[in-house]
Amino acid sequence: MTTPLERFYAVIPAGGIGSRLWPLSRADAPKFLHDLTGSGSTLLRATWDRLAPIAGDQRIMVVTGRAHRAAVEQQLPDLADANVVLESEPRDSTAAIGLAAAILVRREPDVIVGSFAADHVIRGDRLFRAAVAQAVTAAEERYIVTIGIQPTEPAIGFGYIKSARDLGIRGAEGVMLVDSFVEKPDLATAKRYVSSGEHLWNAGMFISRADVLLEEIGRQKPELLAGLLELAEVWDDAAARGPVVDRVWPALEKIAIDYSVAEPAAAAGRMAVVPAHFDWDDVGDFASLAKLNSGGRKSDLAILGENARVLSDASSGIVVSQTGRVISLIGVQDIVVVDTPDALLVTTSANAQRVKSVVDALKLSGRDDVL
Amino acid sequence: MTTPLERFYAVIPAGGIGSRLWPLSRADAPKFLHDLTGSGSTLLRATWDRLAPIAGDQRIMVVTGRAHRAAVEQQLPDLADANVVLESEPRDSTAAIGLAAAILVRREPDVIVGSFAADHVIRGDRLFRAAVAQAVTAAEERYIVTIGIQPTEPAIGFGYIKSARDLGIRGAEGVMLVDSFVEKPDLATAKRYVSSGEHLWNAGMFISRADVLLEEIGRQKPELLAGLLELAEVWDDAAARGPVVDRVWPALEKIAIDYSVAEPAAAAGRMAVVPAHFDWDDVGDFASLAKLNSGGRKSDLAILGENARVLSDASSGIVVSQTGRVISLIGVQDIVVVDTPDALLVTTSANAQRVKSVVDALKLSGRDDVL
Repeated sequence: MTTPLERFYAVIPAGGIGSRLWPLSRADAPKFLHDLTGSGSTLLRATWDRLAPIAGDQRIMVVTGRAHRAAVEQQLPDLADANVVLESEPRDSTAAIGLAAAILVRREPDVIVGSFAADHVIRGDRLFRAAVAQAVTAAEERYIVTIGIQPTEPAIGFGYIKSARDLGIRGAEGVMLVDSFVEKPDLATAKRYVSSGEHLWNAGMFISRADVLLEEIGRQKPELLAGLLELAEVWDDAAARGPVVDRVWPALEKIAIDYSVAEPAAAAGRMAVVPAHFDWDDVGDFASLAKLNSGGRKSDLAILGENARVLSDASSGIVVSQTGRVISLIGVQDIVVVDTPDALLVTTSANAQRVKSVVDALKLSGRDDVL
Repeated sequence: MTTPLERFYAVIPAGGIGSRLWPLSRADAPKFLHDLTGSGSTLLRATWDRLAPIAGDQRIMVVTGRAHRAAVEQQLPDLADANVVLESEPRDSTAAIGLAAAILVRREPDVIVGSFAADHVIRGDRLFRAAVAQAVTAAEERYIVTIGIQPTEPAIGFGYIKSARDLGIRGAEGVMLVDSFVEKPDLATAKRYVSSGEHLWNAGMFISRADVLLEEIGRQKPELLAGLLELAEVWDDAAARGPVVDRVWPALEKIAIDYSVAEPAAAAGRMAVVPAHFDWDDVGDFASLAKLNSGGRKSDLAILGENARVLSDASSGIVVSQTGRVISLIGVQDIVVVDTPDALLVTTSANAQRVKSVVDALKLSGRDDVL
């Protein structure tokens, strides 16, 4: 008999562009294909390297857009062909993770799937592995399990998980029942959350038995589940797959797994959370990227880019240099300068969240060449 | 007998790089070769077009660096060969203007020279012509004459001229004796100057008989004068000129004409000023350039560059675009962004004067490729 961890399969949905990191992130160079920490690895590769020791490199499935296939395979040479799931168009995370679960459960009825974003930054691999192991153990008890990050500050850019009580699961001590998921709070609320000790950051990781996950999807979204099962039925039959995908995939409802699964499952008492202490960041915007690259010192200008030539008196903010041009900053603070061959962004850390509005404006004005 | 205005010769020293406008202005693309107003003309060409109706296009001499010869001649196709004075290296304005005067006085002993910077912006040609005519009339009375601009605000970026009393020169009514030249003031002093009514902006224009100017140079700087006369003696002899220039020019003292001529002449009561009302700006930095290009409205972001693609919510400051890249500004005010193919500057209007320090730092660190 296999242990739950031996039945674990990691799923990496590699979908989002990361519009708040424009013009660094683009449709053809999404966030997960960038090295955002100067480590030498793309975020996708780092995600793989973190999961391979847990799942084994033959047990990691990547769900990504057709356009990114070559880049993903170049980043992950050990990725098995059968573990590449290509989306003809983005249908959000329920479809992406749900399809992976539906495919895998046909191959292994007892499989436990865990989904981990391709574009987050995590430091503390040992703590990460311990948390995943606990999550897998709790998943075996038919909970849908998330990993919640112990907050280190009253962040307003993240969603929070409110925990209820210790579930007392053997081998997964400390795993709590989830009371509820709460949206990004304002600062006062975030401060209350952090001091309460009951709130954890929602890192968007979900671990559960594949059959339990599909059951939960079916409770809320029966049509979506039906579509996923129809796709999964033909997925491993190369001849039959194409026409079904063309017909079914584009019709699937676009909905984030947070809404289709996590919130209703929490409300019904079927959601558990592993409180974890590793460093985690979703690198949601340039302010976050600046913090991540300032070496922990608040008074440093972060500089990202191999051939950066920066001359600056700024003591905060970030410069991302992709052109090798001389970049000179005088008398600007908390500045964000992103210098790419065809687009330049100048903003401040405080305005970092507003970058997406520029992308929207560029879209509206038809300037897709730089998106 | 000729009128004084018929004996007028315009001299355009086209020397300075305009370091405070880096990276727009460069050693190989100095300020005077740029169109800084979106008029379609470089500042040099606009200076020519302003002077040609007064002096005639055969009576304008340009003193410039050897490296800029081709660019200058391309800008000024009507410039006579004999009116191009090339410097092998910069020796400041006394040498440049003094050499022009020394050459011209040998050709025409009664010549009246007027020197006008190649890189200032003037609006109001009729008023400019009237002021020059008055200056020429006063110059005939052996004054060294400057044109002072009636201040429109308490600018701290300009030097001022304090006037003493009306000289009562026939045909040049309103021309005043100069009491003194005063350096760039602080704001409180500038406010006092403007309300006094006695102070005018020093626009660096000097009009005088060539023999009077050379006499004044000789009073303060006899060696410099001797060098200039030696150069002038052989200047129009193509065979003899080269060796003398190579020997004499590099040894000439580097001193601005303000110090060698204007201040001592003023102190001795030999300096006159024409109060003038045309719009004048030396476009000394990007704050000035922003003001010049904001259409007079304080709440406009100025944009300079033919193919500028700017997406911005900034209501002040300036973007100079030389690359055609999309430039996006979010939540930054009074910003200065200068986007060139090999260098990018980000600063604010308030820090515009500090741009020169970056140029100095780049020089020190050996990054001459972008200077």
